[in-house]
Amino acid sequence: MKDAAAKKRLAELAEIVGPAHVVTDPQVLEGHLVERRGLYHGRALAMVRPGATEEIARLLHYCNETRLAVVPQGGNTGLVGGQIPDQSGAEIILSLQRMNTVREVDPLSNVMVVEAGVTLAAAQEAAERADRLFPLSLASEGTCTIGGNLSTNAGGVGVVAYGNARDLALGLEVVLANGAVISGLSKLRKDNTGYDLKDLFIGAEGTLGVISAASLKLFPRPRAMATAFAGIPDPAAALKLLALARDFVGHGVSSFELLPRIGLDFVLRHAPGSRDPLSSPHPWYVLIELSAQQSGRLEDTLAELLAAAMEQGIVADAAIAATLDQRNAFWRLREDMSDAQRPEGGSIKHDVSVPVSATAAFIAEASAAVQNFMPDARVVAFGHLGDGNIHFNVSQPVDADKAAFLDRWREMNAVVHAVVKRYGGSISAEHGIGQLKRALLAETKDPAALDVMRLIKAALDPNGVLNPGKVL
Amino acid sequence: MKDAAAKKRLAELAEIVGPAHVVTDPQVLEGHLVERRGLYHGRALAMVRPGATEEIARLLHYCNETRLAVVPQGGNTGLVGGQIPDQSGAEIILSLQRMNTVREVDPLSNVMVVEAGVTLAAAQEAAERADRLFPLSLASEGTCTIGGNLSTNAGGVGVVAYGNARDLALGLEVVLANGAVISGLSKLRKDNTGYDLKDLFIGAEGTLGVISAASLKLFPRPRAMATAFAGIPDPAAALKLLALARDFVGHGVSSFELLPRIGLDFVLRHAPGSRDPLSSPHPWYVLIELSAQQSGRLEDTLAELLAAAMEQGIVADAAIAATLDQRNAFWRLREDMSDAQRPEGGSIKHDVSVPVSATAAFIAEASAAVQNFMPDARVVAFGHLGDGNIHFNVSQPVDADKAAFLDRWREMNAVVHAVVKRYGGSISAEHGIGQLKRALLAETKDPAALDVMRLIKAALDPNGVLNPGKVL
Repeated sequence: MKDAAAKKRLAELAEIVGPAHVVTDPQVLEGHLVERRGLYHGRALAMVRPGATEEIARLLHYCNETRLAVVPQGGNTGLVGGQIPDQSGAEIILSLQRMNTVREVDPLSNVMVVEAGVTLAAAQEAAERADRLFPLSLASEGTCTIGGNLSTNAGGVGVVAYGNARDLALGLEVVLANGAVISGLSKLRKDNTGYDLKDLFIGAEGTLGVISAASLKLFPRPRAMATAFAGIPDPAAALKLLALARDFVGHGVSSFELLPRIGLDFVLRHAPGSRDPLSSPHPWYVLIELSAQQSGRLEDTLAELLAAAMEQGIVADAAIAATLDQRNAFWRLREDMSDAQRPEGGSIKHDVSVPVSATAAFIAEASAAVQNFMPDARVVAFGHLGDGNIHFNVSQPVDADKAAFLDRWREMNAVVHAVVKRYGGSISAEHGIGQLKRALLAETKDPAALDVMRLIKAALDPNGVLNPGKVL
Repeated sequence: MKDAAAKKRLAELAEIVGPAHVVTDPQVLEGHLVERRGLYHGRALAMVRPGATEEIARLLHYCNETRLAVVPQGGNTGLVGGQIPDQSGAEIILSLQRMNTVREVDPLSNVMVVEAGVTLAAAQEAAERADRLFPLSLASEGTCTIGGNLSTNAGGVGVVAYGNARDLALGLEVVLANGAVISGLSKLRKDNTGYDLKDLFIGAEGTLGVISAASLKLFPRPRAMATAFAGIPDPAAALKLLALARDFVGHGVSSFELLPRIGLDFVLRHAPGSRDPLSSPHPWYVLIELSAQQSGRLEDTLAELLAAAMEQGIVADAAIAATLDQRNAFWRLREDMSDAQRPEGGSIKHDVSVPVSATAAFIAEASAAVQNFMPDARVVAFGHLGDGNIHFNVSQPVDADKAAFLDRWREMNAVVHAVVKRYGGSISAEHGIGQLKRALLAETKDPAALDVMRLIKAALDPNGVLNPGKVL
């Protein structure tokens, strides 16, 4: 863009949000142009920070009229490049971070209304102050925002009991490409008046509209929790344990995470202060947590469950957390599993899901396929077994060249995704499409579904100003 | 339509589905041209009964090319006329009833795949045979079909714990207006690959595509249930009891229904064999049911809950069902409440919802507004308090003229809906829009949302052949 034209645009943007909120300082901008894995590094005309829905509406109207492309951004924690502008320098970042008000908490209706820029942690805390639970929980919760969580339909460790971000939203306020505002901050549990537009914007990664606020479901805060770390022979045993746990307590299974020994080894090696919770090593582990409203008997129930599982040969050994510190230590082993792969060299990631019943077979087949493709590669498959969502990561062979290993990213993907496809799985279980998986989506998605997606995109954003080059 | 043209069409339809499945016999057709309240009575060129997804695809392609309007129909139990053709006689009914195969039950993944014409009761039974629960439950479950349940996002008595039909669908197979098929029968709990099209078709009442099959969530079958009938002073007490119950057992509150004394009186008067479960009358009642995986302590928990509620003055008296027969008798009082209004004369219905915390205030204000409008009218407000969904029905004054009373349907609606609006409520909580509330939707819906609905309808059904004149 010519300097004079750019200057004019910046002045016009400043008229909408105020000069202080049109950021062009390269040092401030830099942190918003690159995501944490460093896979995408864009440029931008400016970052614009509206402070009210009405400003977002005027901003989008202006951008639509002048064909100025808009990249919505929350906490910039996305892992597929959806929040990063392209290389042209002609796009603007629309930061939602000033939209950070918790508008209302209604504990009797079990609803809260928050703006898009509220961090997930702040939303959790607002719920807690009203003696309620907002159950979305993920590693980046201190930084990621509700708007980003909804735009990417975030998952995390609470999905097995409470569902994805989508399942936690009752209503949305959305600004459309033309600046019109859908005021849909419903507090209703039931409303069958017309098409479900809310779910169209959730998971659309800012390509159909900009979510400015949301009404979210709250839940009673569990009074009791019981957590165990169990050693098991293989993922098939984890599936049996899951079925048994559900038979024991149903919805009370609030987390169910699968961990491989190699992942635990990485954590024990690299995370200071970490300790193996069991006295001898096991090939696989499950971190299981039960929740209930009534305290008292929950630890007994967990102990009974584990005893039954041991009797059936499902579980080899297990430790129940006796203190909150012990519970936190168990959880840190799970949470450090991603970071502990970094010091081991390059890691090629696959965020995939398969039907829950197929997870064990999938892990076995995909691991064999990887070994066949690259014999010394180290598979680290872990994650949310209760949802069939496996973070199927592959660490480089010991002492291999990191760059040469990472050069084979796409080939490795093809090897793993071929197995995913055979099981009717998803090539993006929780991280979304963004830029990273856009080509892959075009190759793998049902063609009729892709056509409908394109029709909807054309209908809602005819000028293509909303996050172009993402998803579709 | 001219006879010759009609004949040609019928012959072409017969080529697609076979002559036996193009029904024109007036006696067979009649049952499909009118719904059970008798509010809508249409005509049709024929009822066409495809037996496979591929036939539906060819049928819709043909209809789209020849501009033949299609009215999808399942069990014909809808209450807003969505499944009834217009008066022209130029539309066809697309009956899904031959699509009645349970394709798969996968208890380990907690998923089953069923075709659209499977009745809700048959789906429940298929789940039960695999020791699983499919928790959607409503009065018409013996007749209504999964396709209709999804197309109208059905509610019912299990919503408080398990959600609406929408919340129970993992994926859909949908035939689009042009005959293309979206093969989306996902068994995945997590899949963030592109826009959420599934939820666009759910609740769209057949105006965007025809649902031919669905993959549905299953749950562990509760091993224990405890049911009580509690007398309370007013709806505000019901809200307090609900909060207390959730604090006691959280997700274990599997039903929570509010009933007024007048409704119980109607049932006791007109339903043979019905008995008042409590020794003296109370102004209002709650039917509460708890579910759990572990038997043993659940009745104790319910007794403790009711004792605590009595101590706090929330509950005046209560009976816990000691036998399955008693439980069924409690539920019949609730289930007979709609039918028991019929012998009392005309009844003007409102299927509305408000935020849960506003239900008591809503009932009080709407009742006062009705009394003000028509002093001797008898309000019978009952329903799913746990979801904020009240069936706010108004029976005619004793000995009034039924026809004259029913002539004031729209005026009465306006009186009640004005209060609904004040509380941010919905004018159709679970029955949908169909023909009955189409004009009301245009008046009450957020204008930006209506615009987006119209854009999507135009994009997906450009020739307007899918259930025209419904919803929009």
